Amino acid sequence: MHGISVDTLLYGLGIAASVVCGATGVLEAGRKHIDLFGAITAGIAASLGGGTVRDLLLDRKVFWIADQTYLIATIAAAVMTFFLARRWRLPAKLFLLPDAMGLALFTVVGTQIGLQFQTPWLVASLMGVITGVFGGLLRDVLANEMPLVFTSELYATAAWLGAVAMIVMQELGLGYVASSFLGMGVVILIRLAAIRWHITLPSLKTGNS
Amino acid sequence: MHGISVDTLLYGLGIAASVVCGATGVLEAGRKHIDLFGAITAGIAASLGGGTVRDLLLDRKVFWIADQTYLIATIAAAVMTFFLARRWRLPAKLFLLPDAMGLALFTVVGTQIGLQFQTPWLVASLMGVITGVFGGLLRDVLANEMPLVFTSELYATAAWLGAVAMIVMQELGLGYVASSFLGMGVVILIRLAAIRWHITLPSLKTGNS
Amino acid sequence: MHGISVDTLLYGLGIAASVVCGATGVLEAGRKHIDLFGAITAGIAASLGGGTVRDLLLDRKVFWIADQTYLIATIAAAVMTFFLARRWRLPAKLFLLPDAMGLALFTVVGTQIGLQFQTPWLVASLMGVITGVFGGLLRDVLANEMPLVFTSELYATAAWLGAVAMIVMQELGLGYVASSFLGMGVVILIRLAAIRWHITLPSLKTGNS
Repeated sequence: MHGISVDTLLYGLGIAASVVCGATGVLEAGRKHIDLFGAITAGIAASLGGGTVRDLLLDRKVFWIADQTYLIATIAAAVMTFFLARRWRLPAKLFLLPDAMGLALFTVVGTQIGLQFQTPWLVASLMGVITGVFGGLLRDVLANEMPLVFTSELYATAAWLGAVAMIVMQELGLGYVASSFLGMGVVILIRLAAIRWHITLPSLKTGNS
Repeated sequence: MHGISVDTLLYGLGIAASVVCGATGVLEAGRKHIDLFGAITAGIAASLGGGTVRDLLLDRKVFWIADQTYLIATIAAAVMTFFLARRWRLPAKLFLLPDAMGLALFTVVGTQIGLQFQTPWLVASLMGVITGVFGGLLRDVLANEMPLVFTSELYATAAWLGAVAMIVMQELGLGYVASSFLGMGVVILIRLAAIRWHITLPSLKTGNS
Repeated sequence: MHGISVDTLLYGLGIAASVVCGATGVLEAGRKHIDLFGAITAGIAASLGGGTVRDLLLDRKVFWIADQTYLIATIAAAVMTFFLARRWRLPAKLFLLPDAMGLALFTVVGTQIGLQFQTPWLVASLMGVITGVFGGLLRDVLANEMPLVFTSELYATAAWLGAVAMIVMQELGLGYVASSFLGMGVVILIRLAAIRWHITLPSLKTGNS
């Protein structure tokens, strides 16, 4: 990384992940009938929702209010996806890899923030999961759908295992940067393996509905 | 405004808007089967939800916790509407004009608060939209319905354009009061015109549900 | 209470109530098809959601971030219930009494915190209701169901009357401990009586769905 600091790299990756989540948020919400405002709202929820919940829980300045680049990137991605999806059928599969990378990045950033705020390790790993996963959950709640993360292949589990791996390695003395990239690798590998071989968590249906 | 300050006027309008939103919240939620507690919750969500989300995002004291007049007015309106609606069929149309006025007022107040907190202009306009629109969105999420604001005639769009108009005029040197009333005028005119001529945003249905 | 302080007692009751809510959260959400992550999320929402909303509204440190015992107890209860419910059909009735006790405890704790933060009495009683009731509401919103509390027997009403009874007795000079136990008694008695005789609030269906 000649001349580019790690912080600049993570910031750029964060903006890129916001763009991806903004786009997939529109595609997911678009399975229901929504208008342009609904699409932008779904994109913002998917992209910025997880970090917002994390910041509120930690009583931290909400990240996209201090720096509106995230907001502009997300809205631009949502609007472009909206008009592209009205013309062409965008296959959600296109986004599987970028989405896994976004999940990994958001999880690692969220976990680091939790550790910075001196939360206990389980809470810190949960901050990672919330940052990575709650955006999609909010998007589905707004679109009045059963959250996809409750049934998809090891989505939150991959995030949590990556967060725990990162925390453990940091405890063992590994540096901030190396443990972050290791955590991201764990998330991406588990998620892609789970999609490839259809690995899911055990599930429940009590049936007294 | 002889003898009445602008702040008193805005405060009075705010209470009036809370009453209107509390009433319409009950009517909207009542399309599902709800009990009196559900009605009060829906009324509170519709009336105070947008401002609450704004205050949480800005890390500002939640407005109805400092001054419980908003809460009392909203609950009174919700309870009265509940019992009236059990007897008579209240046409939702009755509330279209007061609702547009409430939207306008909440939007302008929310935008002003965003500006006071030194947020960037896009965030400030979003605070206006959130204050004006998120109450109805929360109400629909609680009642397990697809949010009306995702499909209705230029609801959030009217709010956003009013917020932007207000910010632009204030940048150009127009005073606080004049720009607020101009912003409200923009919201009301666009919203009523959109209802009259059934103007909606473009919409999307990807159909891979 | 020889040798055990009231604070220790309330803390222990709080953990116990978290366990009960974590378990019932899984059973309720399990009426839909959910995986283990969905079950844990539903358990956490049901158990910690009400207190979290209260702490955010009062700008108070979120209780389970400071002390992760609540989180661990809730997750353990959710995981155990998940695997038990996959084997056996756990009747929800089993939990009616513990659930009423949890509701009573959460309500009283929430109201006390509201009073400590010098909120007006109506807001303080609402903090009690939010602490007691919003967990179940969040759980149902996440599971894309109409909230049970909007139709069940005097659930929120019992909480509110208990909170008001506690506040009134404290105003009249009754001590902190005595008024807390009186408030809890009011909640439990009203809730159990309402279940026994199927007492519900009046309800509404406007029918213009």
